[in-house]
Amino acid sequence: MRRTSFADMNCSVAQTLEIVGEWWTLLILRDAFLGVRRFDEFQERLGIARNVLTDRLDTLVEQEVLERRPYQDRPPRDEYVLTRKGRDLLPVIHALREWGDRWVFGRDRAPLRIVHERCGHRTRAVTTCSHCGEELRPGETRAVPGPGA
Amino acid sequence: MRRTSFADMNCSVAQTLEIVGEWWTLLILRDAFLGVRRFDEFQERLGIARNVLTDRLDTLVEQEVLERRPYQDRPPRDEYVLTRKGRDLLPVIHALREWGDRWVFGRDRAPLRIVHERCGHRTRAVTTCSHCGEELRPGETRAVPGPGA
Repeated sequence: MRRTSFADMNCSVAQTLEIVGEWWTLLILRDAFLGVRRFDEFQERLGIARNVLTDRLDTLVEQEVLERRPYQDRPPRDEYVLTRKGRDLLPVIHALREWGDRWVFGRDRAPLRIVHERCGHRTRAVTTCSHCGEELRPGETRAVPGPGA
Repeated sequence: MRRTSFADMNCSVAQTLEIVGEWWTLLILRDAFLGVRRFDEFQERLGIARNVLTDRLDTLVEQEVLERRPYQDRPPRDEYVLTRKGRDLLPVIHALREWGDRWVFGRDRAPLRIVHERCGHRTRAVTTCSHCGEELRPGETRAVPGPGA
């Protein structure tokens, strides 16, 4: 079953889901952020069918979220590395993890902790306002038409 | 086709996707954050089949992301309101929108702008470290086993 396409929606949330919203894609990206690069390692960690993984990786390369880099000549083998565009998806992964830590596992049973290497401390991702730096809380933002409305 | 379940993965990202990763679900939540509460309004804005919308809303109510509130007696009608647990998904929506604004539309063609009402300024969502307050950039965090590893 081909899922619905959101391609004609004039909305950045929908357009992002058009690229990364396929089943598995965000988990492939999660693993890429954890340092996974090779097909077999993705396959083993995710337990995903090889044809599905191939398809998802191809789409991510096409969309310039991942790029292929050869790491071996005989037989030729590529690894998959996050591009700048791909690395910019980190806040999505952080936000998903944050919510699961809090609401599914409970923070004191979180499977992973994240360490911010620049400051050296355990961290949680906090979504803040680019203007005033305060946390962006629900009910304190509103949407207005943008230049592409 | 029933999609794969991530329910047995010991990972907060996977568990969050288990709840909100179905096609449409994040767009339903996007609209809920924009103030939509009624079935017919969701249906009209999304152009989604009524049975699919019913199914997604039921799941979100079951998962306590939305709650039903009666707004009319005859005929009885409920609206769907974000719970605390649901409102905590706002960073996911912000992160998806941010990326689409930047990488799909380009910021000067973004369909919507977000205003932070507390400070009164147009805002972008910035993901920051709960400890030092600096932006959490790719390559500057690492994952370590948590208490639930």
